[in-house]
Amino acid sequence: MRAATVVDNTIEIREHPDPVPGAGQILVRVRAAGLNGADMLQKRGLYPSPPGVPADIPGLELAGEVAGLGPGATRFALGDRVMAVVGGGAQAELAVLHEREAMPVPEPLSWAEAGGLPEVFTTAHDALFSQAGLGVGERLLVHGAAGGVGTAGVQLGVAAGAAVTATVRNEEARPSVAELGAHVIAPSESAGHGPYDVILELVGAPNMAANLESLAVGGRIAVIGVGGGAKAEIDLLAVMGKRARIHGSTLRARPLEQKADAARRMEAHVLPLFATRRLRVPVHATFTLEEAAAAYDHFAAGGKFGKVVITLG
Amino acid sequence: MRAATVVDNTIEIREHPDPVPGAGQILVRVRAAGLNGADMLQKRGLYPSPPGVPADIPGLELAGEVAGLGPGATRFALGDRVMAVVGGGAQAELAVLHEREAMPVPEPLSWAEAGGLPEVFTTAHDALFSQAGLGVGERLLVHGAAGGVGTAGVQLGVAAGAAVTATVRNEEARPSVAELGAHVIAPSESAGHGPYDVILELVGAPNMAANLESLAVGGRIAVIGVGGGAKAEIDLLAVMGKRARIHGSTLRARPLEQKADAARRMEAHVLPLFATRRLRVPVHATFTLEEAAAAYDHFAAGGKFGKVVITLG
Repeated sequence: MRAATVVDNTIEIREHPDPVPGAGQILVRVRAAGLNGADMLQKRGLYPSPPGVPADIPGLELAGEVAGLGPGATRFALGDRVMAVVGGGAQAELAVLHEREAMPVPEPLSWAEAGGLPEVFTTAHDALFSQAGLGVGERLLVHGAAGGVGTAGVQLGVAAGAAVTATVRNEEARPSVAELGAHVIAPSESAGHGPYDVILELVGAPNMAANLESLAVGGRIAVIGVGGGAKAEIDLLAVMGKRARIHGSTLRARPLEQKADAARRMEAHVLPLFATRRLRVPVHATFTLEEAAAAYDHFAAGGKFGKVVITLG
Repeated sequence: MRAATVVDNTIEIREHPDPVPGAGQILVRVRAAGLNGADMLQKRGLYPSPPGVPADIPGLELAGEVAGLGPGATRFALGDRVMAVVGGGAQAELAVLHEREAMPVPEPLSWAEAGGLPEVFTTAHDALFSQAGLGVGERLLVHGAAGGVGTAGVQLGVAAGAAVTATVRNEEARPSVAELGAHVIAPSESAGHGPYDVILELVGAPNMAANLESLAVGGRIAVIGVGGGAKAEIDLLAVMGKRARIHGSTLRARPLEQKADAARRMEAHVLPLFATRRLRVPVHATFTLEEAAAAYDHFAAGGKFGKVVITLG
């Protein structure tokens, strides 16, 4: 099979042996695989794959057809449309994953949409609800809202009955985020707004002082991205005074059972909202597998609204 | 009535008008009132009392006999032994508080023990269980374990079936903390130990880097004291990698309903363990109300094992 391959900090397309599904695993013919910030890090050698995942094939999410069943795999039939968060190896013609990591693709979604859905919606759902416990009527601030996790977070917040404010650096992307239901402001304006019950932090350290200032008493800050910097000076007295909680999380390093649990929560609480078209996956651009290097350059340029997805077949 | 009174950053004993219990309130003839770190801050003008509390009479916890009932107060009878966390004003001959803030004093406890119990056990219970969700079999680290909240945290952790490690700066106090059931180490040793599922942080910023290093995946850090410094540099990537949670909290600023809720949890889950002598209140020294200034000096010297309590009558 052919796959995007990290070679000396660049992306090339190389031949690899076809993967073989083990016990409980399914083989998926990949039709779409979204790009994520972690792929950029992996390309630069900064985000090694966890054990059991191809070390040089990036890609944390995929959608495709079930093309083979390992021993004991019973959740899906050959030809079923599935999608999943995986530990790596998604940007390839074929991939194997445990059947309990996979979710069915809701009927209305195109391949490109399904391939750009799992990582960002699972991440946003896990951060907002499993961790931060966002509730109806609460005030949510999403920092860096034009990207994949940001657009997922805004939509999930709106769907859950929260009042959503979003910061978007790129002016051109602001109307699109506003259409998702957020009150959109420039990053520099966020300190004057609030208070917020939950803050979804996708930029990192530079926002943390203002976050604590604009946090409501009892508020929660979920840190999911640190592209803007990781070392934050935090005033613990302010954390005490606000009775605040700061969460950090990442999906990739979790063991199978936790990824499977997150997939079940997605099936129960998020996928039905795609079936009724309440949620959508904004796709900014698609590239073929052969154009993967160009897809990475496009993603790295930043400031875009929606996902960058590699499509196959 | 006479009361400890903050006058120009010193403690004097002054006459004040007797307080009168309002609707739902009780008047308590104070028999004991523990000292806490917040009293030291209030003496220095750094921790103003919340609204509705005497501005110049310190004291966050008390035990005594019910000496009067406001309109509609029905939970207690005259003469009942009660104790409570209050917003201030405890170090006085008389104090008023809402009846739902008050808890009955378990039979085995002396006045000095009861007067030194509410603040530290409520704080430790709230931090360890309501916030950090400490569970049986988890590994707990208590930083600054010889003081009031520390000895409460160690005992509650042991009672809940956690494996408790404690840092104690003062060598002389270490055997006493070990007797409570903790594995006691010097603060400098803590970075080499772990991992810990929950860390109760009573010292502050200087410990935070080592805390994140020694935290287990999925671990929680509850910050309750910052006497050692409040400005911490925190590596958000480490918070994400550990899927960690950092909590901050303080009891004093909470509204009545939250203080009452904390008191109900104490009644349900903690006071029975005093009734059976599973928990105890180590009292380091008692002072009369007239000796209050000396009590403050004694507390401020630090490094002692157990509570400093003002006793009356």
